[in-house]
Amino acid sequence: MKVQEQIRQGAYISEGFIKEYQQLISNTVLPYQYEVLNDKAENTEKSHVVQNFINAGKAVKGEDTGDGFYGMVFQDSDAAKWIEAAAYSLRNFPDPVLEKQADDLIDIIAAAQDSDGYLNTYFTIKDKDKRWTNLLEAHELYCSGHMMEAACAYCEATGKRKLLDVMLKNTEHIYKVFIEEKHGGFPGHPEVELALMKMYRLTGNEKCLSLAEYFINSRGCDTDFYKRELKARSWSVWGNDAENNEYQQSNVPLRKAENATGHSVRAVYLYTAMADLAAQTSDSELYDACKRLWDSITKRQMYITGGIGSTVHGEAFSTDYDLPPDTAYAETCASIGLMFFASRMLENELKGEYADVMEQAFYNTVLAGMQLDGKRFFYVNPLEVIPGISGKIQTHKHDLTQRPGWYACACCPPNVARLVSSFGKYAYGENADTAYCHLFAAGTVSFDNGIKLTCETKYPYAFTVKYTVQGNGSIAVRIPAWSRNYTLTVNGLSYTEPAVSGYVFIPVSGDSEIILTLDDTPRFMYASPMIPRLTGFACVCRGPLVYCFEGKDNDGDVLSLTLDTQGGITAVHDNELLGGTVRLEVQAVRTAVTDGLYTSQKPSQTSCTANAIPYYMWGNRGENQMRVWLPML
Amino acid sequence: MKVQEQIRQGAYISEGFIKEYQQLISNTVLPYQYEVLNDKAENTEKSHVVQNFINAGKAVKGEDTGDGFYGMVFQDSDAAKWIEAAAYSLRNFPDPVLEKQADDLIDIIAAAQDSDGYLNTYFTIKDKDKRWTNLLEAHELYCSGHMMEAACAYCEATGKRKLLDVMLKNTEHIYKVFIEEKHGGFPGHPEVELALMKMYRLTGNEKCLSLAEYFINSRGCDTDFYKRELKARSWSVWGNDAENNEYQQSNVPLRKAENATGHSVRAVYLYTAMADLAAQTSDSELYDACKRLWDSITKRQMYITGGIGSTVHGEAFSTDYDLPPDTAYAETCASIGLMFFASRMLENELKGEYADVMEQAFYNTVLAGMQLDGKRFFYVNPLEVIPGISGKIQTHKHDLTQRPGWYACACCPPNVARLVSSFGKYAYGENADTAYCHLFAAGTVSFDNGIKLTCETKYPYAFTVKYTVQGNGSIAVRIPAWSRNYTLTVNGLSYTEPAVSGYVFIPVSGDSEIILTLDDTPRFMYASPMIPRLTGFACVCRGPLVYCFEGKDNDGDVLSLTLDTQGGITAVHDNELLGGTVRLEVQAVRTAVTDGLYTSQKPSQTSCTANAIPYYMWGNRGENQMRVWLPML
Repeated sequence: MKVQEQIRQGAYISEGFIKEYQQLISNTVLPYQYEVLNDKAENTEKSHVVQNFINAGKAVKGEDTGDGFYGMVFQDSDAAKWIEAAAYSLRNFPDPVLEKQADDLIDIIAAAQDSDGYLNTYFTIKDKDKRWTNLLEAHELYCSGHMMEAACAYCEATGKRKLLDVMLKNTEHIYKVFIEEKHGGFPGHPEVELALMKMYRLTGNEKCLSLAEYFINSRGCDTDFYKRELKARSWSVWGNDAENNEYQQSNVPLRKAENATGHSVRAVYLYTAMADLAAQTSDSELYDACKRLWDSITKRQMYITGGIGSTVHGEAFSTDYDLPPDTAYAETCASIGLMFFASRMLENELKGEYADVMEQAFYNTVLAGMQLDGKRFFYVNPLEVIPGISGKIQTHKHDLTQRPGWYACACCPPNVARLVSSFGKYAYGENADTAYCHLFAAGTVSFDNGIKLTCETKYPYAFTVKYTVQGNGSIAVRIPAWSRNYTLTVNGLSYTEPAVSGYVFIPVSGDSEIILTLDDTPRFMYASPMIPRLTGFACVCRGPLVYCFEGKDNDGDVLSLTLDTQGGITAVHDNELLGGTVRLEVQAVRTAVTDGLYTSQKPSQTSCTANAIPYYMWGNRGENQMRVWLPML
Repeated sequence: MKVQEQIRQGAYISEGFIKEYQQLISNTVLPYQYEVLNDKAENTEKSHVVQNFINAGKAVKGEDTGDGFYGMVFQDSDAAKWIEAAAYSLRNFPDPVLEKQADDLIDIIAAAQDSDGYLNTYFTIKDKDKRWTNLLEAHELYCSGHMMEAACAYCEATGKRKLLDVMLKNTEHIYKVFIEEKHGGFPGHPEVELALMKMYRLTGNEKCLSLAEYFINSRGCDTDFYKRELKARSWSVWGNDAENNEYQQSNVPLRKAENATGHSVRAVYLYTAMADLAAQTSDSELYDACKRLWDSITKRQMYITGGIGSTVHGEAFSTDYDLPPDTAYAETCASIGLMFFASRMLENELKGEYADVMEQAFYNTVLAGMQLDGKRFFYVNPLEVIPGISGKIQTHKHDLTQRPGWYACACCPPNVARLVSSFGKYAYGENADTAYCHLFAAGTVSFDNGIKLTCETKYPYAFTVKYTVQGNGSIAVRIPAWSRNYTLTVNGLSYTEPAVSGYVFIPVSGDSEIILTLDDTPRFMYASPMIPRLTGFACVCRGPLVYCFEGKDNDGDVLSLTLDTQGGITAVHDNELLGGTVRLEVQAVRTAVTDGLYTSQKPSQTSCTANAIPYYMWGNRGENQMRVWLPML
């Protein structure tokens, strides 16, 4: 049984920091992405996403497919993620133009579905006979999964069932292939599993649950599947290694899994579904596996920014404690997936660390993924950038110094859009008698259990959170682990019940006012000496925000800065800087740059103030040095 | 005009540290390599080197080539390097068995030469028509170059001219192709240039000089050469990028070159020849280019161990200040080539820094390339090894935790053998009236200028160097830059003439005794803050030796060690450790390993003694952690 669930989309109406981001998605990101999908954006690589669906629609009618298919094998998912984000956005900011665009696109998608329920433009246009012959690489189930998520979101947002019906029909088809006809196998890129769980929750359709169970329970049991599949097919997308089951998260039955391995986005999408299924079916064995995987990620393989998947080689987890700041991969999508996983872990068990990580990923890597103006995006999120090395030499080619525009492989931008637009689902949860406040998000929430709540806060820059509550039951407020102390008042009186697993439970009846004040003191953070790349280094944080040092604020040179961890850190509210932020002034020393590479004379050091900005804001002022971790005295 | 030249091979008879290494080469390395070349070594990949020559001999006689060619396209060079090392070794330790082996091998090689002077088993066996059609990849000139070096060394050592005559005939052939027939182009892997200079010095043959000049002066002038060559041929060895002129050191005419780029071994072989030609022909423009390239390497791209070529991608220089300790490539051969380059720079200008770098490369990376027992070899020389990461994950696969045995691509072991066996050539130089002491090498030297010298020292572990000199002229003794102070006595009297460009000149007549005492104080070394990977780190050195910290001497964990650079370093002579060495005890702190990855509580630190051993000795006691650079307080 689930401890608690996400709130409905639309139950949360944002204010403040989150509202500004949601407006950015609504006003800038979604319109731009719509142009891209329709090949109308300038200076952008052709997307062809909508045209693929139009051409597939011709194919299912037996007509000429025009200019055919173009793009990645998973190109369809860009449309799905856009619809999903648009759906969330429509609940935040009703917009008839956007809704019309989505309706029209859904009509086009529906017309591209084959009579048997199959829906995928790549195979429908290119070669119907190759359907389901390359689960390893071809992303059919991945694309279906994203379209299922879009369908659920759009139905929840608008009440319109057209896409949901399309995807239920698609589910029937998948059920027929995998359950009735016993095709065998599991998707190379997990995603359909978590989508099927969403479909099940929304529709109650048991086939959705059965399919999710099938994909999760069969994975890793038949370790020769991809090898046999490779042998049986005459074609390949990328020539993926069919024998690298560890990379595919299929080396052991998932319930036996000990370590998070392989492609990091795929991993967390899969683990999300596992956690979801475990909560839904009260499967403690499966939840235990999820806990081991959670620990493998968050206790041994995660950057302080909530970034995961440290290596560019396969966009993957590498090994425990291998967390290089400068060659980090740390894909934006992987941190979004980690938030999904955390959110589903909370459904199994209320533990503050799940929400802590969700917050850590969101305010650092996820937000860093998008330029402050919403126009450019990072796929890769390094914790150190040195112009001349980063983005340039072979080992650092993937770590760009500036956010590029739209990608041919455009997974991250729409993923940020759908996450930000549905932020309330991660921030708040509920069950029959309790309202759960996981993240501190200003705005109003109407819980299905009858509790209504208004949250006022300037989080993540100020740490007083005021909840005005109407209704009876209890409010569970998370106390973040980073807050070394806090005060809590209920209706003006100090409330001293201790937190249990990171949450304080406050009984409420009628009108209540809860004021939580968290620790606003900036802090140094230290890494475990098990992480080779971080020995001798420290970084600075305030609240949930990890900070970084950019050249722009530090005379162009952050490499010669060393932090004085005996010294102070001062938080400075600066309305001019980057559109308004809190800068940290940190006591430091600057090492003189001398001739030559090495010297026996200790280079002179002079005291100075190092200036740090929130990590998520880096790279918004042109190319310059950036470091999260600095050496410490 | 050359300032000074290397001494003749055999003029130096070693004692002490160098003698022990030369004996190791003679007693262990050369016999083992001979077995390998003849496919008689056990547990070793087939070499087929000698058999290739035998089979090529059949080919030139029009006979069936038996089992044909096997191995790398440059397989012949293994035989050449072995003969060269054997020649040097025969001067150190006369050995009729070894000389007979070399004579027999030379007979086999001579028989493989075609009537027109061409000599290369790959093309002679496989396809005569493809000769000279792939200068980019096929290593014909490289193999000729190594055989020329062998020929010179063997003639100098034994007076036998057979191989020299073979290579003079081969030179005639190359001259005909490149000068008379104007074939065009230059070798993908430079080597023949420096070899031709050796041939010229030994024989006075002007065609050797002309060819060296041609290859050096034409390189980088015709930047389309490799592109045209690729277009004209229908075959490839590795599919090298014909357009990457920077990697090929052919993007600009060499006299205009500013930066050392591309494959590091190729680069330093080429720069060696440039410096040699500049000295031989008093070409100051060419020497100026050499100085720029020298600075590019030693002031911006060199590890403190004298390792160069920091990236595995193309075994190449990456960019200025990119010197990662853990993913270092730093090929043994590249540091050997750097010694060649330094030695030739000294022929242009007497500057202590050239000899300093020569010494740095030798006592650290070159010696580290060989296991203490002479049986296993490092190709790649990282400055940090962490089992679980090093040698295991994709980014660190090349950085092995243990020396492997013989390689299929066996360039480094015979390169170490020839360098160590001819150490005297690098240690001592001369001109008409002066004996130059570049490196401190115990033993006796008979200079051609009539000066005789005996050097007594326990270098590199003790720093008193006593020269007993007979003859008239002057002795130029290098004062290493690392020695913060020194005393010098001549015939018992303090000698206070200051060093000029790192050398003190001492007039001698009759019998003289010179005693130099260098600084034996261990020292911390600091890196420039321009090197991102070394900010906040320090290492320890004593004399020319860079030290490292291995787990074996530090409770299995060097990651949690931080050096206290305010504290002391104690040198401890330890006869038990690694067959006898000087260990350094360094004041340090050990950071407690706490749960989790990050903490706001500064982990507790306790004082301790960190134990360092010479870097060249690392990896001789099984797999364990190793770090040269440690964080500093």
